[in-house]
Amino acid sequence: MSSNTFGKILSVTTFGESHGPAIGCVVDGCPPGLALAPEEFAHDLARRATGRSRYTSQRHEADAVEILSGVYEGRTTGTPIALLIRNTDARSKDYADIARTFRPGHADYTYWQKYGIRDPRGGGRASARETTMRVAAAVIAKKWLRQRHAVEVHGWLAQLDDLVPGLPAGAAIDFDVVESNPFFWPVAAEVPALEARINALRKAGDSCGARVNVIATGVPPGWGEPVYGKLDAELAAALMSINAVKGVEIGAGFASVAQKGSQHRDEMRLDGFMSNHAGGILGGISSGQDVVASIALKPTSSIPVPGRSVDVDGAETEVRTKGRHDPCVGIRATPIAEAMLALVLMDQALRHRAQCADVGVVEPRIPASPR
Amino acid sequence: MSSNTFGKILSVTTFGESHGPAIGCVVDGCPPGLALAPEEFAHDLARRATGRSRYTSQRHEADAVEILSGVYEGRTTGTPIALLIRNTDARSKDYADIARTFRPGHADYTYWQKYGIRDPRGGGRASARETTMRVAAAVIAKKWLRQRHAVEVHGWLAQLDDLVPGLPAGAAIDFDVVESNPFFWPVAAEVPALEARINALRKAGDSCGARVNVIATGVPPGWGEPVYGKLDAELAAALMSINAVKGVEIGAGFASVAQKGSQHRDEMRLDGFMSNHAGGILGGISSGQDVVASIALKPTSSIPVPGRSVDVDGAETEVRTKGRHDPCVGIRATPIAEAMLALVLMDQALRHRAQCADVGVVEPRIPASPR
Amino acid sequence: MSSNTFGKILSVTTFGESHGPAIGCVVDGCPPGLALAPEEFAHDLARRATGRSRYTSQRHEADAVEILSGVYEGRTTGTPIALLIRNTDARSKDYADIARTFRPGHADYTYWQKYGIRDPRGGGRASARETTMRVAAAVIAKKWLRQRHAVEVHGWLAQLDDLVPGLPAGAAIDFDVVESNPFFWPVAAEVPALEARINALRKAGDSCGARVNVIATGVPPGWGEPVYGKLDAELAAALMSINAVKGVEIGAGFASVAQKGSQHRDEMRLDGFMSNHAGGILGGISSGQDVVASIALKPTSSIPVPGRSVDVDGAETEVRTKGRHDPCVGIRATPIAEAMLALVLMDQALRHRAQCADVGVVEPRIPASPR
Amino acid sequence: MSSNTFGKILSVTTFGESHGPAIGCVVDGCPPGLALAPEEFAHDLARRATGRSRYTSQRHEADAVEILSGVYEGRTTGTPIALLIRNTDARSKDYADIARTFRPGHADYTYWQKYGIRDPRGGGRASARETTMRVAAAVIAKKWLRQRHAVEVHGWLAQLDDLVPGLPAGAAIDFDVVESNPFFWPVAAEVPALEARINALRKAGDSCGARVNVIATGVPPGWGEPVYGKLDAELAAALMSINAVKGVEIGAGFASVAQKGSQHRDEMRLDGFMSNHAGGILGGISSGQDVVASIALKPTSSIPVPGRSVDVDGAETEVRTKGRHDPCVGIRATPIAEAMLALVLMDQALRHRAQCADVGVVEPRIPASPR
Repeated sequence: MSSNTFGKILSVTTFGESHGPAIGCVVDGCPPGLALAPEEFAHDLARRATGRSRYTSQRHEADAVEILSGVYEGRTTGTPIALLIRNTDARSKDYADIARTFRPGHADYTYWQKYGIRDPRGGGRASARETTMRVAAAVIAKKWLRQRHAVEVHGWLAQLDDLVPGLPAGAAIDFDVVESNPFFWPVAAEVPALEARINALRKAGDSCGARVNVIATGVPPGWGEPVYGKLDAELAAALMSINAVKGVEIGAGFASVAQKGSQHRDEMRLDGFMSNHAGGILGGISSGQDVVASIALKPTSSIPVPGRSVDVDGAETEVRTKGRHDPCVGIRATPIAEAMLALVLMDQALRHRAQCADVGVVEPRIPASPR
Repeated sequence: MSSNTFGKILSVTTFGESHGPAIGCVVDGCPPGLALAPEEFAHDLARRATGRSRYTSQRHEADAVEILSGVYEGRTTGTPIALLIRNTDARSKDYADIARTFRPGHADYTYWQKYGIRDPRGGGRASARETTMRVAAAVIAKKWLRQRHAVEVHGWLAQLDDLVPGLPAGAAIDFDVVESNPFFWPVAAEVPALEARINALRKAGDSCGARVNVIATGVPPGWGEPVYGKLDAELAAALMSINAVKGVEIGAGFASVAQKGSQHRDEMRLDGFMSNHAGGILGGISSGQDVVASIALKPTSSIPVPGRSVDVDGAETEVRTKGRHDPCVGIRATPIAEAMLALVLMDQALRHRAQCADVGVVEPRIPASPR
Repeated sequence: MSSNTFGKILSVTTFGESHGPAIGCVVDGCPPGLALAPEEFAHDLARRATGRSRYTSQRHEADAVEILSGVYEGRTTGTPIALLIRNTDARSKDYADIARTFRPGHADYTYWQKYGIRDPRGGGRASARETTMRVAAAVIAKKWLRQRHAVEVHGWLAQLDDLVPGLPAGAAIDFDVVESNPFFWPVAAEVPALEARINALRKAGDSCGARVNVIATGVPPGWGEPVYGKLDAELAAALMSINAVKGVEIGAGFASVAQKGSQHRDEMRLDGFMSNHAGGILGGISSGQDVVASIALKPTSSIPVPGRSVDVDGAETEVRTKGRHDPCVGIRATPIAEAMLALVLMDQALRHRAQCADVGVVEPRIPASPR
Repeated sequence: MSSNTFGKILSVTTFGESHGPAIGCVVDGCPPGLALAPEEFAHDLARRATGRSRYTSQRHEADAVEILSGVYEGRTTGTPIALLIRNTDARSKDYADIARTFRPGHADYTYWQKYGIRDPRGGGRASARETTMRVAAAVIAKKWLRQRHAVEVHGWLAQLDDLVPGLPAGAAIDFDVVESNPFFWPVAAEVPALEARINALRKAGDSCGARVNVIATGVPPGWGEPVYGKLDAELAAALMSINAVKGVEIGAGFASVAQKGSQHRDEMRLDGFMSNHAGGILGGISSGQDVVASIALKPTSSIPVPGRSVDVDGAETEVRTKGRHDPCVGIRATPIAEAMLALVLMDQALRHRAQCADVGVVEPRIPASPR
């Protein structure tokens, strides 16, 4: 199976380089009859876009989505949906001086080693520009999940450098707040502190990492396939495939290590699960609780601070990034992480009904949490 | 593709329930001509086995592997290699009383919701017994990686409850020490403290989590496929698919969040990479450095401490596990995590040469680290 | 993806060599709750078995199926169903003299060239013995298709050498007749002529080819996926993957070449399609008519008549087969072809509901044919 | 896996409807470093194009290929190659009157039944327009096969209606002749007879079927994977997935049925195989002989002769096609069949080296045929 394809029944194939003529994707397996218009992609693409605020890269892309196939008279037909976005603000000259140098912390060296050739313009295929098409494809998945199953997917920034939101453990996230600031931060009063941190990093020519949390509410029990197609396994792959991600947690994640069994296991009452350390997944199958995951994003490697490296001729050199870049790539990772969660869930939903459509609703069904 | 199948070119299909007649696997895509004998499976299966020490479950399985196909006169033929292990010590009566109850923290409820039927004997398909076949399959992968590429895969226990090895950061692990104790712990002097901790937990009827680290040395640059077939993405799925795993880190993992870009990015000199925060993977492709990953395993849910739950008839009840179980499932997860790392690497190695066999060795090639 | 695995949602992985310890398969993706007992495999395995009559190979295998997993208290659980058959009548000494010679018309030479090693015992993996497990797996598919969709799959021998059944074009086949003779021949009075032909061939030390037709009745419209997952495309692969098959036709097949458009296209009335030249498939999707396919099987290559060949040492030699073999392999291909049709249909049925479960019954629905 | 994706290592995903804004494909897994320019697609696309002669449909498409990704400075980079062709001569009004009617012999009814919605413009996704992208993708495969393995792929029209080329059995085809006439007919003197036949059919408002043969020379032994990934099985699927194909033969095909084993099996001498009834494939693996296949294409269903049908409202009606169409679709199927053969071969070549790269050249190697 193609390594640029994601998903089994709902499958997304993406293509395109950061500074090539276009990026695009083919979404195959979407159920027919779903209303879909080009303007529906704008919202999430804007959330992901660079140039949205002064805290992210200043590349400006219109990101206008053209639907090339799979939609007739405003509805999906069941055939592959191709989406295309032309690259318009590709300043390849910014990258001319690094075409022969391997930037530390980037895929320059590894692409070179694998293929013996690489497209150096803006990182080529390894650029985060590719994630634009994941977000576009997930617009379809989010809509289907909402309409068909009342599943909602949300994300927020849960850590920036060493800053964490000042919220009580387990506090509900106010997504109106999250959407009201360019950091996707859940505490409005803390946004100035984030701005100050980013400004300080920019001044220092440095960058920092971030943690992003995602949650899906309304997921019914039964989605996910043992053993290698587990919901959490596929979610881990999906999230780890996002540029810069170095860690994935489901539910309690690494905190589980120092928990006791009597504490971690989520006890059940007829009126609901009593906790959600599992993150909504048991044995690779959704339990009906919220599906909760968290990812770590490394700090941007492309920074003005010089870094020691080598070039394609085998000489040692220094790299000092001058092009547009994000001081913290994690800031705009929230919609990307949401996208991967939505795509995994929709694919698993379709696969579940392939095998188990005749099972129906099984009793007893335990609510996500006591009301 | 089957959800009980793992890998694209080297693909492993496992089957079998904990207390069914047998467990087994089919390993397809193995290169021909590899010497393989039934007795080669014994070592790693013994490392994984329950009943190995008084610190793990007391179920005793001979775990004798029968090679049913794919080997002729002691060598692999390129056709599918089927491996079979008969279950001999399956005491299903131990589980009779929980057949109608959903154990908290287990897959009982989610299998029931998904399929409307479940095999309750020892957890059925959701039991960690399934991982036996992953370890068996990986014996083949480890051997091929060693013989063909001098790649070695190792693992160790990096945390038990809140205990961590007293080693300086970045210290080399002595795998002779790791293999000399039933915990796979890298500091011999600390083993009594681990024993005490497990004994205390057992006395309290409780359990704890664990962290396991795995490393592959000798991996050449170039393995891994962008974008969804990234080496780290597939490794994340492989590790997350292991029972009880709730988190996966590559390289610096979640510590990356609070790192600076100038600190995290691994600078390069001609005599080697100057650090390895990336965990040997950049842009989803191996860099030639050690591939390093870490996983979190939740505490065993099956414990004598009673847990509130519900049963299949919709009544509230309490569960108190009396069967054999591990006080910490993480103790024997080390060979399982090694297995998944080995299987991912071999599959990616074969896929790499499918597309890039003609690329050859690309210059400059940077050593894993300065000598 | 494994080359010994067949199907996407219902996937079958087979393993085993003709004269190895066992053959087996893993059936993954089967819906839960289907009743299944070991004795249900006997009927179709007996139909396929060698040694059934004096007109086929005299190898006698009990072909007792052991269910190793995936069934609990007589019902499928949704987890992989592993089936195992021990080889008991494997006389490898019969093949000792050809271990170093490439039999003309066999896979001996090509396996040698591909793998540099081969299991010569009875053809190893290339033996038709492998098809036993296809028939076993399809017992599950046939049962599900019948119970869930009232789909019935049948086959018959439509040509042996140059003998064709003396039936009017389009005449309905009497499957009681087909099942009453070892040739699966639809005209009882002609069976003695077939016996005479086989006896004459055996006397001459030669063999002949055969044509087998298969039909599925009751297939609803809508199964099959454009463009590469077309029902007829997958059926063609499935049938061509059977040993000795050299041609596949859907509906009118090669007769279409000399047909006119006004003749071939199947006109539609509200009371039914007026003909079925399409073989029940249009645009790769079932139309609701009978799905009809036909295959050509080449004559057995293993015959007593000496054949010129070469050996592994690069010397020219002659091969004269003395082992047990079928004078016409096509005679027992009928249940194998049925099996592949059933497996393709069930997989497509499950995939159809993955994408289109919400479409429901679409009007107008045209009957298969006017009553 | 996506049903609009074809191939495992070299995988091609196509998208687009006949009268939508564009058609396109994504070719993933292509080895890096292959020279590739947009103008290289022109030759084969022109061979396939409608409007090439007065004997095919008069739709005129420029079919200008834009390379959107995967190529840098004129060479493939190993990342997905996206190709795009804008539809320019889409006269949807031609089809307005059939938007609510199911044309007999077309996919109109089956798409309607499957999806409950269909794009009626020019047949939508079911149109042969989709095959344009197969031909485009195969330009890459043909070039790689030629450069890397000296494999050449050719095709020709082997029957039109009841006309067959007047050539002795087994005569070599002169591909200069084939390419010199719009029928791909191998006997120049017979072309006027074909023209007369097409003119007569057009006058009668009717159509006829065709047979196309394809051959690959230079294929080394060893390509193809048992059991379900057999070279002939995948070739059968690939060819059957072409619009209007109703039959596939490998080598002797259906003629095998009446052959004797002593006649069919291809005997071997050190200086070459003595015949090629197998069509270059034994046990699903290439033998080193020419790979030979033949397909049957049904007569065009869209003809001026009225056909009885029903409409979406459940009323009986008559269909009389007035739009542009081919009197015989088989005339331009030759490059399409070549394309599928080339794509299958390249994918298998890459898969072969994934598993067997270390096997090397195995002795003895038998030439394709005695010189």
